[in-house]
Amino acid sequence: MADTLRLIFPQWQGGGLPLYHLGAQVLAWLAPEATGPVLKIDVPPPSGADLPIEGGIRARRAVLAQADAAMAALRQRQPARVVVLGGDCGVDLAPFAYLSERYGDDLAVLWIDAHPDIMDRTQTPNAHAMVLAQLLGEGDTEFVARVPRPLAPERVMYAGLYDMSPVERATLDRLGLGMATPDDLRAGSGKVLDWLTTMGAKHVAIHFDLDVLDPAQLRSLYFSRPDAAPGAFDGIPQGRMGIAEVVRLVTDVAAEAQVVGLSITEFLPWDAATIRDMLRKLPLLNEG
Amino acid sequence: MADTLRLIFPQWQGGGLPLYHLGAQVLAWLAPEATGPVLKIDVPPPSGADLPIEGGIRARRAVLAQADAAMAALRQRQPARVVVLGGDCGVDLAPFAYLSERYGDDLAVLWIDAHPDIMDRTQTPNAHAMVLAQLLGEGDTEFVARVPRPLAPERVMYAGLYDMSPVERATLDRLGLGMATPDDLRAGSGKVLDWLTTMGAKHVAIHFDLDVLDPAQLRSLYFSRPDAAPGAFDGIPQGRMGIAEVVRLVTDVAAEAQVVGLSITEFLPWDAATIRDMLRKLPLLNEG
Repeated sequence: MADTLRLIFPQWQGGGLPLYHLGAQVLAWLAPEATGPVLKIDVPPPSGADLPIEGGIRARRAVLAQADAAMAALRQRQPARVVVLGGDCGVDLAPFAYLSERYGDDLAVLWIDAHPDIMDRTQTPNAHAMVLAQLLGEGDTEFVARVPRPLAPERVMYAGLYDMSPVERATLDRLGLGMATPDDLRAGSGKVLDWLTTMGAKHVAIHFDLDVLDPAQLRSLYFSRPDAAPGAFDGIPQGRMGIAEVVRLVTDVAAEAQVVGLSITEFLPWDAATIRDMLRKLPLLNEG
Repeated sequence: MADTLRLIFPQWQGGGLPLYHLGAQVLAWLAPEATGPVLKIDVPPPSGADLPIEGGIRARRAVLAQADAAMAALRQRQPARVVVLGGDCGVDLAPFAYLSERYGDDLAVLWIDAHPDIMDRTQTPNAHAMVLAQLLGEGDTEFVARVPRPLAPERVMYAGLYDMSPVERATLDRLGLGMATPDDLRAGSGKVLDWLTTMGAKHVAIHFDLDVLDPAQLRSLYFSRPDAAPGAFDGIPQGRMGIAEVVRLVTDVAAEAQVVGLSITEFLPWDAATIRDMLRKLPLLNEG
């Protein structure tokens, strides 16, 4: 469909991890050729310097500037549909705010993620863990100001989420956000499809954080860092969905409603970075 | 150095595994920008069909045609130095034969590999496991005919090899090939540098099969296949070298002799293929 804008959005500051920058570019390289326009959001590449915490949020100014650039491009071009190739989860602030503005109550949001992304700056400095709260109109005022039409909580549903911290659980319960766990989705997409039918929304935007996947199936995830110390991720929920299950879910949803947004986030190609860095050190290749 | 020709050589038939084709392209994408000419060898992409065994060798005609294309390009351009980004190990037949022709007795070959690549067609149908034998003038006559000036065994040394099958061991002993094991190289590059000094060769070509690396450091290797059955690789030696150790070895060698050939082979980016195949199945991305 020609009116699908593809955004390549190598934001890394929202997760505080330089590798998201390479990840977005590898993802863009691996994606099928676009049938519509492709736009790369300008993101300063990692310099090796630490990112400043600004008003409780890491690289606040850079993350806001990038969201503003994406929103300006979206408002100018007015695509009917948006694909986002991230980057950290925070890349979805502007595109999902744009889709909410465009489709209003006729938009449902499926948040496929092992984590709820509803923290605030008292719980983390990393904007990528706050982005869904902001899209719901909660949290830091500068970020929330980027969402003129916040999502209604009943129009948001999680898929693949199964555990979280008590503080996240409290926020989720207060907002009344629905969720379909990996176990709920094992046999089929029914729980999500029932919600879609109840909502009656004709349009759906899908956030797909790759870390919802079982790290044994894909090792380019946060939890599959090759140099991680044993136990480094104890207590942090790791993805439990299979790739085929996510593909089935998304396909089932696309048969019920028009998909107007799809973002792929948190791709961390550890091996690509390892190879890139190694090749730079070898004779005949390091001449540049 | 402007007179370095970079060959992108996505040969996959020599290893019988389609993923080598993508691997060469990802490797080329990750490599530092070339300072000299870059040439991609034309290789038919995997079609999903099984490859024929032709006279005991898998895809003999395709592999020979690709070697001939590479040799024709090398002889026409006459580069002083060659970088090869493979592809399976078999990509080195033409480039190393070319370098042997060009530098003669003034060429030494360092074969950094967990496997000796000296089988014949009675032991395997896969050309990538035969290529060093062919460069030494042994094995299938059609392949050996592509090596007008075979390497002298004393001018070849393995690095990172530490175990092999009895039949490989017998060939290695008969030829009298030297080797520096991962243990030999743990403390330094001395064993390889001593050999280089004894040889007095001013030029060196380096074959670097990535599977010499510890699969815990790089998961884009044959032995890190995510869907491998438990025990699938029992009895096959897996790499035991660290990336830093290989970089040190190659750097030390480059300080002693002029590196005129460097090939990087057997990169198998499982995750890249997983992501590519998954993205093709998702709405808004599968429209092409």
